[in-house]
Amino acid sequence: MRKVSFERNFSKHAEGSCLVKFGDTHVLCTASLEEKTPPWLRNSGKGWITAEYGMLPRATGERMKREAASGKQGGRTQEIQRLIGRSLRAVVDLQALGERQITLDCDVIQADGGTRTASITGAWIALYDCLKWMESRNMIKTDRVLKDHIAAVSCGIFAGQPVIDLDYLEDSSAETDANFVMTGAGGIVEIQGTAEGTPFSEEEFTTLMHLAKNGIAELVALQKQAIA
Amino acid sequence: MRKVSFERNFSKHAEGSCLVKFGDTHVLCTASLEEKTPPWLRNSGKGWITAEYGMLPRATGERMKREAASGKQGGRTQEIQRLIGRSLRAVVDLQALGERQITLDCDVIQADGGTRTASITGAWIALYDCLKWMESRNMIKTDRVLKDHIAAVSCGIFAGQPVIDLDYLEDSSAETDANFVMTGAGGIVEIQGTAEGTPFSEEEFTTLMHLAKNGIAELVALQKQAIA
Amino acid sequence: MRKVSFERNFSKHAEGSCLVKFGDTHVLCTASLEEKTPPWLRNSGKGWITAEYGMLPRATGERMKREAASGKQGGRTQEIQRLIGRSLRAVVDLQALGERQITLDCDVIQADGGTRTASITGAWIALYDCLKWMESRNMIKTDRVLKDHIAAVSCGIFAGQPVIDLDYLEDSSAETDANFVMTGAGGIVEIQGTAEGTPFSEEEFTTLMHLAKNGIAELVALQKQAIA
Amino acid sequence: MRKVSFERNFSKHAEGSCLVKFGDTHVLCTASLEEKTPPWLRNSGKGWITAEYGMLPRATGERMKREAASGKQGGRTQEIQRLIGRSLRAVVDLQALGERQITLDCDVIQADGGTRTASITGAWIALYDCLKWMESRNMIKTDRVLKDHIAAVSCGIFAGQPVIDLDYLEDSSAETDANFVMTGAGGIVEIQGTAEGTPFSEEEFTTLMHLAKNGIAELVALQKQAIA
Amino acid sequence: MRKVSFERNFSKHAEGSCLVKFGDTHVLCTASLEEKTPPWLRNSGKGWITAEYGMLPRATGERMKREAASGKQGGRTQEIQRLIGRSLRAVVDLQALGERQITLDCDVIQADGGTRTASITGAWIALYDCLKWMESRNMIKTDRVLKDHIAAVSCGIFAGQPVIDLDYLEDSSAETDANFVMTGAGGIVEIQGTAEGTPFSEEEFTTLMHLAKNGIAELVALQKQAIA
Amino acid sequence: MRKVSFERNFSKHAEGSCLVKFGDTHVLCTASLEEKTPPWLRNSGKGWITAEYGMLPRATGERMKREAASGKQGGRTQEIQRLIGRSLRAVVDLQALGERQITLDCDVIQADGGTRTASITGAWIALYDCLKWMESRNMIKTDRVLKDHIAAVSCGIFAGQPVIDLDYLEDSSAETDANFVMTGAGGIVEIQGTAEGTPFSEEEFTTLMHLAKNGIAELVALQKQAIA
Repeated sequence: MRKVSFERNFSKHAEGSCLVKFGDTHVLCTASLEEKTPPWLRNSGKGWITAEYGMLPRATGERMKREAASGKQGGRTQEIQRLIGRSLRAVVDLQALGERQITLDCDVIQADGGTRTASITGAWIALYDCLKWMESRNMIKTDRVLKDHIAAVSCGIFAGQPVIDLDYLEDSSAETDANFVMTGAGGIVEIQGTAEGTPFSEEEFTTLMHLAKNGIAELVALQKQAIA
Repeated sequence: MRKVSFERNFSKHAEGSCLVKFGDTHVLCTASLEEKTPPWLRNSGKGWITAEYGMLPRATGERMKREAASGKQGGRTQEIQRLIGRSLRAVVDLQALGERQITLDCDVIQADGGTRTASITGAWIALYDCLKWMESRNMIKTDRVLKDHIAAVSCGIFAGQPVIDLDYLEDSSAETDANFVMTGAGGIVEIQGTAEGTPFSEEEFTTLMHLAKNGIAELVALQKQAIA
Repeated sequence: MRKVSFERNFSKHAEGSCLVKFGDTHVLCTASLEEKTPPWLRNSGKGWITAEYGMLPRATGERMKREAASGKQGGRTQEIQRLIGRSLRAVVDLQALGERQITLDCDVIQADGGTRTASITGAWIALYDCLKWMESRNMIKTDRVLKDHIAAVSCGIFAGQPVIDLDYLEDSSAETDANFVMTGAGGIVEIQGTAEGTPFSEEEFTTLMHLAKNGIAELVALQKQAIA
Repeated sequence: MRKVSFERNFSKHAEGSCLVKFGDTHVLCTASLEEKTPPWLRNSGKGWITAEYGMLPRATGERMKREAASGKQGGRTQEIQRLIGRSLRAVVDLQALGERQITLDCDVIQADGGTRTASITGAWIALYDCLKWMESRNMIKTDRVLKDHIAAVSCGIFAGQPVIDLDYLEDSSAETDANFVMTGAGGIVEIQGTAEGTPFSEEEFTTLMHLAKNGIAELVALQKQAIA
Repeated sequence: MRKVSFERNFSKHAEGSCLVKFGDTHVLCTASLEEKTPPWLRNSGKGWITAEYGMLPRATGERMKREAASGKQGGRTQEIQRLIGRSLRAVVDLQALGERQITLDCDVIQADGGTRTASITGAWIALYDCLKWMESRNMIKTDRVLKDHIAAVSCGIFAGQPVIDLDYLEDSSAETDANFVMTGAGGIVEIQGTAEGTPFSEEEFTTLMHLAKNGIAELVALQKQAIA
Repeated sequence: MRKVSFERNFSKHAEGSCLVKFGDTHVLCTASLEEKTPPWLRNSGKGWITAEYGMLPRATGERMKREAASGKQGGRTQEIQRLIGRSLRAVVDLQALGERQITLDCDVIQADGGTRTASITGAWIALYDCLKWMESRNMIKTDRVLKDHIAAVSCGIFAGQPVIDLDYLEDSSAETDANFVMTGAGGIVEIQGTAEGTPFSEEEFTTLMHLAKNGIAELVALQKQAIA
């Protein structure tokens, strides 16, 4: 696994924020609190956690067209931001949050593979700090809203070997690529596995799942350190 | 598993077509051949398989806004059509296809859960018939282009029990929901698992994977019957 | 005139639905009820009937770009859906409907000329069944809301001869092409005539109008049979 | 019929231009020549005539949203510009025009009913002047390209009486409203009739058609005067 | 400076309107009153002045794509309409206007340089007439709402010489181009200076500013004549 | 003036990059080289410099809607990116650059007033490093392409006093706000002055211009240090 770091309070305006680095992949995660829920939750007593994802045009080796300029978010962007939102909601008690919305913006400053797993892992820190900010104003109790840690990592088979936390080069040539999202207690929240070349077997998949389990445990330990 | 049927040649214009039914979920899959590849494959000697997905506005219990009218395809639509395309490409030799593109349109006429798995399973039939159409014109050899069957099924944990091929009601209240895409040889091509409520364990996931394996073997047998 | 058939209750979810076939032109018409009117009718005591029209990408001989993907409905689509809406409203008492909206979705599954006339003719059946559904719930009286039948047919001059219900081939090479929408009582609701090549004379137009009158009388008879 | 006037060469830049007035309805029609055809006519030796239509936001009694600001042209706009294009093409020999495109922009400066019929009638003048401009540069022969005059008028039944060239007030309350496009020789090019309230009979429609024939003959006479 | 003229009441529908000509640049300015403010001013007691700008496609030497057809307003359009809005607001007491919005539409009928300065200068007349219309209905007092005149002119250095009110040819080849917006009292409201080729010096800029001051004084005198 | 710093090579992928800070305003500027020019410069021997500007949604005190999600770049964004592009082009010899395009992306990571002036000032560094990168590959000579420094600063009148480099608070309540873009040699490239409340006098404007001149000289000195 590449060197992972969290820089809390990176942004002076956001209620919670974190610059997360998985090697050369750098993502700025901010949590923004709004005192209203989406329309379909009005008067339900419940809140909502949502996420948006973006990449700076030159976060990548070749400049990508700016989505704001092309007039829409691509399929990959939407897929990732839906994944981030679902992952974080899996450890939040929306009733205990109350009728509020927290938006997690994950903006990739520099990309080198694993931007979605770094985003989820860093967004948890931003969310935690946002909840602490709310707690300090007597709005909620953090430990009643946030039920567990959540972290994510990619695993794959590269040159016949199982590897964890693939960088861009490994990711591009991996035969198989799976993203795992798990809680601090080791529960599985999301699995997304894709065979790029030849299909994979159940045994291969089980190997990746174990690898992920260990990696995520490590990431959760790092999150604990970061908020200590 | 619900009653599954394939009605080939449903559309008089398409090179291949199939109305697939998984219970009350009905999807029209058509395969359209074009004698050109996308720009990034030009002069590579390779072809491309792509997919588009849509739902008729009243395929569902409540009428949904027509995507053409709202001016964009939603995140869910894009996620599904990307999945269908990747799944079919996993069993196609793009080199043997030559510089052509086949577009698989999967349009949901009636929805009752599992529209993406029905789409993949039915699209394979439409693709097969399109390749046979090409073979009859001496453009390709079907068995050199199409390496294997591909089929998909959803599995979940509903009311504490593992179930396969969830309908809308089961899907809405399932604790866990996973889609599996596998080849005729049993190789895994895609896994997408999501915990809706509480996270799931490795054991639960393994149970679902075995359930899926059997279900997909059955779907592949039905595909073989359909093209016999 | 080509063989015309109506398959009622084609869709399990819609309040009314009908798969109409004019030869190889197949259109799925659904009627969806909503308990609210558009903004400009609020508190007027009146309801509204509106229509949307779409074609599956491979309904036609060559695959057409999906409108949801290109991000807007083309001029032809908008023209047709406006026509369908106006035609149906011509036989509905919006006051008797009450503050509700019924949306008629006409989706072309397979096209072979005359999709707009088939849509109008089939949408009437879907609307009728929707109103019967409402009547069975004591919401309205069908015969107070629906004042008459409505049906439509195209007529043209093809190879010097007046013809009715043109298929795609005739339509493409017709010198003149007119669509007529009439009520069961024979009243004219819409006329759209276009000279494709040389202009046409008043006499030619009168011939087409008579042809249409007879054809529409036949369609209305078929509608009566269908709902009997 | 309201007072009709044509002010040629209203615009200093366009190859042909005309400010047409039908009473208080004022439309600026310009013809713009481009030395290329649309893609589907390339290397066919044929040219193309197309039209675009717009209304200034405050051309109407209440300000309408600017279509450029709302991000798309509405259904009515598209319907009208398609009608204008078809109408003008009906009197043009596209082969004699050669591989060029002439765009007729019809922009409504002030509206008081009948903007589409004024647009067609005025666009003919702009087109004529554009062709003369081309003739003076030895590009074409005007009388080989332009086969006849084209003009349009609306007729309707208002307060039980047939009326011609309806202004906004008449148009809004007319029971029936039909637009006719005819050539100088009296040939019919387009008919669009709509019953707003009760359906109309064949006799009523024939009355409107005769009324239109006379009105259009008058408009053609005025066009002849204007270009004399 | 080119010949400047104002034709008031050009549009029969608008509360205020003016066709302004700066030489061959002709802009139709209309003022439209609405009895509501934008959301962010609700219940503030304040009104709002906003502007929209557009060019007819053939206002220019070469036909430009219609913004409504291309689906968005370009950067230049947005820049200009923001400038017009800010300029007019600078002389309006929004509190005295009350909770209403006046929209100034500036549509360029014919362009020959200086469309933004003509728009501002003409919009003032349209606004004045709109306020007078309101005053005649006892809604406001014009002189309490409208604090001063506002007018605008461009200045530049062309062929080494300072020039005022540049036409298209001068504008295209000017080394420097600055737009000035000033009040009747000579106060500066907006300055936008751009070096097209070599940067300019403070002295050059001061020369342009003085030139503008005189030109704007002249324009204000013409406005006074026009409303006298 | 607030503390200004430049962090070169912030991004590992871009040909040139710089994180510029003006106090709490932090902008990441990257320069991306492409070996092709825009269509209108093809075969002219000339290159092009363009700029795009964006803000992360939570760069500001309140979260702003993501432009990629709302489907278009706002007027302010377009205005700023056009300004950045023009400013940089003012010191580049496009002929010496050759048929290439350099895109300067200025993405605001954190905003506290003056984002456009920081963007211009930082983009110069990114451009310089991009040209040095090209020079090291023998593509160009930096000093033949880059004719001078360019830097920008805002000045305003706040609480009756002229101030330089306004932060968000000062900017929001300043009576007058002007942005100046000048070269290393002191030439003026852009001036944008706006009276927010009462108009300003020529004297006030001259004061601001002198203030800006000194400030920009200081910024240019800091740029020189940064690239030393």
